[in-house]
Amino acid sequence: MEPYTFELEFSVRDYELDTQGVVNNAVYQNYLEHARHEFLKSIGLNFNKLHEEGTDAVVHKIELEYKRPLLGDDRFVVKVRAEQDGNVRFVFYQDIYKLPGNELALKAKVTAVFMTNGRPIRPPDEVVQALKGTSD
Amino acid sequence: MEPYTFELEFSVRDYELDTQGVVNNAVYQNYLEHARHEFLKSIGLNFNKLHEEGTDAVVHKIELEYKRPLLGDDRFVVKVRAEQDGNVRFVFYQDIYKLPGNELALKAKVTAVFMTNGRPIRPPDEVVQALKGTSD
Amino acid sequence: MEPYTFELEFSVRDYELDTQGVVNNAVYQNYLEHARHEFLKSIGLNFNKLHEEGTDAVVHKIELEYKRPLLGDDRFVVKVRAEQDGNVRFVFYQDIYKLPGNELALKAKVTAVFMTNGRPIRPPDEVVQALKGTSD
Amino acid sequence: MEPYTFELEFSVRDYELDTQGVVNNAVYQNYLEHARHEFLKSIGLNFNKLHEEGTDAVVHKIELEYKRPLLGDDRFVVKVRAEQDGNVRFVFYQDIYKLPGNELALKAKVTAVFMTNGRPIRPPDEVVQALKGTSD
Repeated sequence: MEPYTFELEFSVRDYELDTQGVVNNAVYQNYLEHARHEFLKSIGLNFNKLHEEGTDAVVHKIELEYKRPLLGDDRFVVKVRAEQDGNVRFVFYQDIYKLPGNELALKAKVTAVFMTNGRPIRPPDEVVQALKGTSD
Repeated sequence: MEPYTFELEFSVRDYELDTQGVVNNAVYQNYLEHARHEFLKSIGLNFNKLHEEGTDAVVHKIELEYKRPLLGDDRFVVKVRAEQDGNVRFVFYQDIYKLPGNELALKAKVTAVFMTNGRPIRPPDEVVQALKGTSD
Repeated sequence: MEPYTFELEFSVRDYELDTQGVVNNAVYQNYLEHARHEFLKSIGLNFNKLHEEGTDAVVHKIELEYKRPLLGDDRFVVKVRAEQDGNVRFVFYQDIYKLPGNELALKAKVTAVFMTNGRPIRPPDEVVQALKGTSD
Repeated sequence: MEPYTFELEFSVRDYELDTQGVVNNAVYQNYLEHARHEFLKSIGLNFNKLHEEGTDAVVHKIELEYKRPLLGDDRFVVKVRAEQDGNVRFVFYQDIYKLPGNELALKAKVTAVFMTNGRPIRPPDEVVQALKGTSD
């Protein structure tokens, strides 16, 4: 049903908590970004090297559903699935589950495009290949 | 068409930029949160005092559309409009415009509820009154 | 005694607070960096433009004394004084005072050098002139 | 010579980088705080639980020497040594080394006290015991 193709474990760090004693809403985007970049690395693409070569992965849209707050000392896993969407866009589905019980903490849908010189390009082959792998 | 009821000006700070030379995607949520809390103050509600009294405004869902990146030294304004949605939910529409030209940089829709003792409650009167004012 | 040459007002934003209800220790460095960059702008130097031209102001050493915590909703001012220290180093003294009462919240001493191609250079003329102004 | 008693490995995350392509100066304090809290956990003290019980570890002074910048994709280790200093203060020495080569990236000295009801207290027994262990 949800064939995640990549996952990355994290622990909440205390500086990420706010006065409510929960992870601040913005910090989840940090977790998601880090997991996406590590996913790209796992298929042979390095975000920083791409940037030096003139290609950037640019986020167009993010939808976040906060299901259950992460608290101090929580461990959790970000699970990632990606799909191509038309010629240039691709979509990351990223869900966060608390450990060890796997309670859903956050559901995210992130739409991105690769850009070179300010113009959208077809995703690099590594991405296309990786996405092909997941949709078959 | 979009009768914003509150707005707050900001300047980009250099520590908010990432290696692409643009404001990091997560930082927009900081801007939006700060604008929401200042909006609440403007109608007589203080986020920190509410928390001490046992009531928290909790975000359930955020949708962000990134239209145009904010760069170093940019000035911008976050404009806010709020609406009640059913008995307990309310929705903030928050749009970011670059200054001085007012180019749209980000559109956001933030769905929140007030909670006491882990249960959703009807929004405080100040919020209901403020929202009534905007929808008439 | 402490002839500050630049100052910048801020308000605490709620996302900067931690579970203790105070501004997280690391966030003070954000405030100090932003005040330094605005100070540089005030004497005609733009940190981002300098970087594009190949020159970076690099911090070598920071000493921070936390005197009194900043809390939610606090307003405060960062006051800045700078001095040259030898041929290439310069030192920023940056003190944070709570408003409106001017209670000292933090004392900082920041030692920096300008670098081009990985080597320290004499500070740009604007900095030397600005510092000369302050030490006379 | 430097008998570190605790160490914790990290990887740089891309959102921690600034426009210079290096980890922003303030972010090192996040790393140091997280390492200190994990050190405290390793000797049986939980920062969040202590706070709920009314006791906070409060930083009075931080001295940071930036020796070598951390870059995107860098791995590094924070090594920690702690010493009591008088009746109430204790000092953390925290040094950051890049991996795998162990080049020194940052040297830090952090002076802290435990506080209850706004007053400094003698450090909890766990800390005293742990520090005794290191100084013998």
